[in-house]
Amino acid sequence: MRTLAETLRADADAVEKALEEWLPARPGDPAGVLCEAMRYASLGGGKRLRGHLVLTFCALYGGERRSALPYAAAVEMMHAFSLVHDDLPSMDNDLLRRGKPSCHAKFGEAAALLAGDALALRALYTASCNPFCGETQNLSAVKLLSAAAGDVGMCGGQQIDLQSEGKTLSLPELTELVDRKTGALFAAACELGLLAANVTDDAARKRARGFGEAFGLAFQIADDLLDLHATAETLGKTPGKDAKSGKATFPALLGEEAAAREAEACCRRACELLESAPDGDEKADLRALCAYALTRKM
Amino acid sequence: MRTLAETLRADADAVEKALEEWLPARPGDPAGVLCEAMRYASLGGGKRLRGHLVLTFCALYGGERRSALPYAAAVEMMHAFSLVHDDLPSMDNDLLRRGKPSCHAKFGEAAALLAGDALALRALYTASCNPFCGETQNLSAVKLLSAAAGDVGMCGGQQIDLQSEGKTLSLPELTELVDRKTGALFAAACELGLLAANVTDDAARKRARGFGEAFGLAFQIADDLLDLHATAETLGKTPGKDAKSGKATFPALLGEEAAAREAEACCRRACELLESAPDGDEKADLRALCAYALTRKM
Repeated sequence: MRTLAETLRADADAVEKALEEWLPARPGDPAGVLCEAMRYASLGGGKRLRGHLVLTFCALYGGERRSALPYAAAVEMMHAFSLVHDDLPSMDNDLLRRGKPSCHAKFGEAAALLAGDALALRALYTASCNPFCGETQNLSAVKLLSAAAGDVGMCGGQQIDLQSEGKTLSLPELTELVDRKTGALFAAACELGLLAANVTDDAARKRARGFGEAFGLAFQIADDLLDLHATAETLGKTPGKDAKSGKATFPALLGEEAAAREAEACCRRACELLESAPDGDEKADLRALCAYALTRKM
Repeated sequence: MRTLAETLRADADAVEKALEEWLPARPGDPAGVLCEAMRYASLGGGKRLRGHLVLTFCALYGGERRSALPYAAAVEMMHAFSLVHDDLPSMDNDLLRRGKPSCHAKFGEAAALLAGDALALRALYTASCNPFCGETQNLSAVKLLSAAAGDVGMCGGQQIDLQSEGKTLSLPELTELVDRKTGALFAAACELGLLAANVTDDAARKRARGFGEAFGLAFQIADDLLDLHATAETLGKTPGKDAKSGKATFPALLGEEAAAREAEACCRRACELLESAPDGDEKADLRALCAYALTRKM
């Protein structure tokens, strides 16, 4: 059996290829620079955890890998869109991303704004065109991905994050912030995997969403803990910024030890939600992923 | 028979109601400010020409008005998204829109960025959820609206516009810029009308797109001509900015008289594309709309 690291690498490579396919370069297009900026922000980096979750949940429920790949590319485009806009001067003003200049540092602010916009739109276009799924599946994919990314999900979480700077949030408030900012897209990724496998059982889809949300929360807390101690070199982005800007985080609210315990509790909850899922390698992979989320160093 | 002004007013009211329905206020939501910014940017103003085109083309082909309204709301949200992001400091840096402070002038730059993002996502969510159309129609609506707004359409046109500042474009280059920046969304609006009426005839859909594109070009040229002479009061936005910033426009390239003749030629082309469409009040309305595009004062 492959190790988690090998599986993650293989999935990241497959998602990269799918992104190449769904985000083709258009050298003759007068708006080619926009395409270049979209590809720069999406290709050649990242752990592709969201894409990995789409592929793994699809396989867990017996779906074909090729049915999941366009959805995996779509969710990674949506994630890339959020990073490009988060890094803009009016948001986090970050010049470093995945160890390279951030999109606006490389292409200018206006082109990065448009590249983020176009990535969000192309994510949904890609989901709507998955040639290995039926119309009902693709329409569901569009609904759940647009809701997860929009005002009720990720964008709403960003807005709460903006408002929270310099304020002390309660634990439920902070949990809602992270559920929307990070958890919603992870939850959508897991459900997209079931959709690709054409699983119509609502309870199974709800458990997959729950796994994604709990995993997303654990992942974000671990990210905040890493952010306190890592260097830009290992992190690939500017560390320590959240603490400096007075942003609400679990370590800031609970202290580092309690935050770490909270992340462990989230992972336990995520693993419990897997219990009724079909047995197999993918289930073991997902459990290993939860352990990895707690111990990763970058 | 109603005058064009009466029809436009009735359609704008109906589209406003549909926007109210698909963009509900969420007073208890901690991200409620985002919702407020989205509603501020979408509701209570605008000529709703794109929404009017959805409704009119649907009626022209015998479709029900209620089937077209969610698509009309979706295309107007997409248009509002583009205005919010165009007005941002890194783009046109405009503080005035529809006679009010622009979205970022009112809510700040970060919230306006997120509001634009969330409007684009909600536009596609709305199109995917139209309860009066079938899954095939809604999936087609998502595909054509996301393509029209994205890198191959509106965002791509914006990118070409950015690059054109201070440069002299050729007539074909400028035409491509406007076809993408303005024409693509007008073309999508007309095709969405046929989709709502469940017209599957490709030739009819192509002619409707062609009408939208030609109308969009005429509309943009007329806009550029207005921009040269209007005041902020009649225009509801800052006039004369394109000329000042050295942006490529038809009047700048061809002179005012030749640009006006080009707009007339576009309207003639648009009207020719209507010839094989079903006869009726809507056809007369669309012809009147073309005449209005050339003579409007605001």
